[in-house]
Amino acid sequence: MKLSALGEFNLINIMTRDILTNPVEVVMGIGDDAAVLKVSPDQWLLFTTDMLIEEVHFSLNWASFFQVGAKAITVNVSDIAAMGGKAAHAVVSLGLPERLSVENIEELYSGLRKAALDYNINIVGGDVVKSPALLILNVALLGLVEPEHVIFRSGARPGNFIYVTGCLGTSAAGLYLCQHPEVQIPESARGLVSNTFLCPRAQSTAGRLLGESKGVSAMEDISDGLLGELAKICQASKVGCRIKLKDVPVAEEVRLIASRTKNDLFKWALSGGEDFELVFTVAPPDTIKIQEILNRAGVGCHLIGEIVPAAQGMAVELPDSTLLPVSFEGYDHFAYKEKLE
Amino acid sequence: MKLSALGEFNLINIMTRDILTNPVEVVMGIGDDAAVLKVSPDQWLLFTTDMLIEEVHFSLNWASFFQVGAKAITVNVSDIAAMGGKAAHAVVSLGLPERLSVENIEELYSGLRKAALDYNINIVGGDVVKSPALLILNVALLGLVEPEHVIFRSGARPGNFIYVTGCLGTSAAGLYLCQHPEVQIPESARGLVSNTFLCPRAQSTAGRLLGESKGVSAMEDISDGLLGELAKICQASKVGCRIKLKDVPVAEEVRLIASRTKNDLFKWALSGGEDFELVFTVAPPDTIKIQEILNRAGVGCHLIGEIVPAAQGMAVELPDSTLLPVSFEGYDHFAYKEKLE
Repeated sequence: MKLSALGEFNLINIMTRDILTNPVEVVMGIGDDAAVLKVSPDQWLLFTTDMLIEEVHFSLNWASFFQVGAKAITVNVSDIAAMGGKAAHAVVSLGLPERLSVENIEELYSGLRKAALDYNINIVGGDVVKSPALLILNVALLGLVEPEHVIFRSGARPGNFIYVTGCLGTSAAGLYLCQHPEVQIPESARGLVSNTFLCPRAQSTAGRLLGESKGVSAMEDISDGLLGELAKICQASKVGCRIKLKDVPVAEEVRLIASRTKNDLFKWALSGGEDFELVFTVAPPDTIKIQEILNRAGVGCHLIGEIVPAAQGMAVELPDSTLLPVSFEGYDHFAYKEKLE
Repeated sequence: MKLSALGEFNLINIMTRDILTNPVEVVMGIGDDAAVLKVSPDQWLLFTTDMLIEEVHFSLNWASFFQVGAKAITVNVSDIAAMGGKAAHAVVSLGLPERLSVENIEELYSGLRKAALDYNINIVGGDVVKSPALLILNVALLGLVEPEHVIFRSGARPGNFIYVTGCLGTSAAGLYLCQHPEVQIPESARGLVSNTFLCPRAQSTAGRLLGESKGVSAMEDISDGLLGELAKICQASKVGCRIKLKDVPVAEEVRLIASRTKNDLFKWALSGGEDFELVFTVAPPDTIKIQEILNRAGVGCHLIGEIVPAAQGMAVELPDSTLLPVSFEGYDHFAYKEKLE
């Protein structure tokens, strides 16, 4: 069977067979945004990694070396934030094709450094190797979290409310405009969406505050699209969910671009990847506290739906009140990333 | 300036500009085999990463998927061993080209798992992405070490003796035979060297014992060739060294292959990469203790030279007692790995 016939979910199933030779230190292995390790009793370690390959995850036709470097850090910080933790130490592997100039690499490295400063992390090591054709970046990131503050994807319960930070679909609109530079759009709208796509920000402060709040039952960062992330929460928590489409927050600029370019706004908002916002669930008694915490930190958040029993599955409520059932499968982020090629 | 005009050492100089936003937790950042991090007071964390790219670091013409997977773990374990630590938790990123079959990936993964079992480490996470053409593996590995047991490359002092575990040049001979399968060599010799090249073993037990011995002043694993590793020790420790060529241990099989194929045996032994043995320095009062510790563990070790003051530089004493000065530069592991292409 050829790899191309399989999606990433199946591959991860191959990968997730037992590989814990010493499980006592492992609170969570494969199966959440980051591994959770018991190294000292009062601080747990979070450990995550992401590989970015040119022409799969980014294109130098529209992203600068600086942006690529910064994004490689950001996507990992987002995984640590999604666990309620604080990013701390990174190692960076670079596969460098010979066509790059030293200036390109310095610019790449400036992006890595800028993101390290923004998120207050150290880059403590790495590997620099030759790559035959494509630029490759791999970041592995350690974070810290107190045991009482960690948030798994498995804690959502029926009756919990579902929230997202920020707006969704912005990065998908940005990708579209990078691929279609000829589209006539006001510069302010183009700037917003391109910036979100090329220089995303991780919700590191919000993630940490939500961890410390002790009021969040499950959380994911939205790297693979809202429905993809909700599917992970629902599968791990053994629940279903109802999302109200009209409550899913979308920026005015994204509405404008979708309308002008005849794109499906809701596909961008529900399935577009790489917004790096957070989706999280909260039991009713904690909702006011959580909203106040985020408001004080200047982080916008929106109530978009509710967790329901597993038997009801995942569904999106359309503006005319009909329910559109959503399959757990099919939100393979390969599908999104393939658009780049 | 094009990248191809620079070696890895210069690139690392670009990379090693200050990127510690929070230096208080960082005992050692870039500049040793692994970073050393203070996370709890009685156990320090070691953190390392290595990227392996098809046709640069391995070729599927001679290595199996199983061997590639196992080697990706081993090269990282070797870095943790070189710090005197114990490897503990890994995350694995795989960039998979579509031409691979599911069976290939399962075999790759069996290799990862076998090595994880051999070294008693957990694989706790990872990333699986599509690669346009080449198989790419990145492993990031955490290890643990007590503060009193960590061994840096910077502690060598004039008068210290220099030892290596095992024999050198074996992996270089194995690479040569993989590239020249037509060479007529007894199967036992071919098996030894091919196995060392394709399925290297990290000296994880020896590294740990040497850390616990508290008698080793500096240590490196030999991934980039003996002289390359000694250059790192000499630069970091601000010393020089004298190596006696006749004392550098080489397996009989490697001598035979070099002689039959008219290869330079000493180039293999002094500059051949990927033997993954350890080179370490010991102050005279500790030499007997150290040799006994390794003997008890069944690890062979050989005295090959001595640390001298920096002003004397690095030199190899030839069998006729003449001294061959060695430059600190020029042991760029790009040079070795390029042979694969």
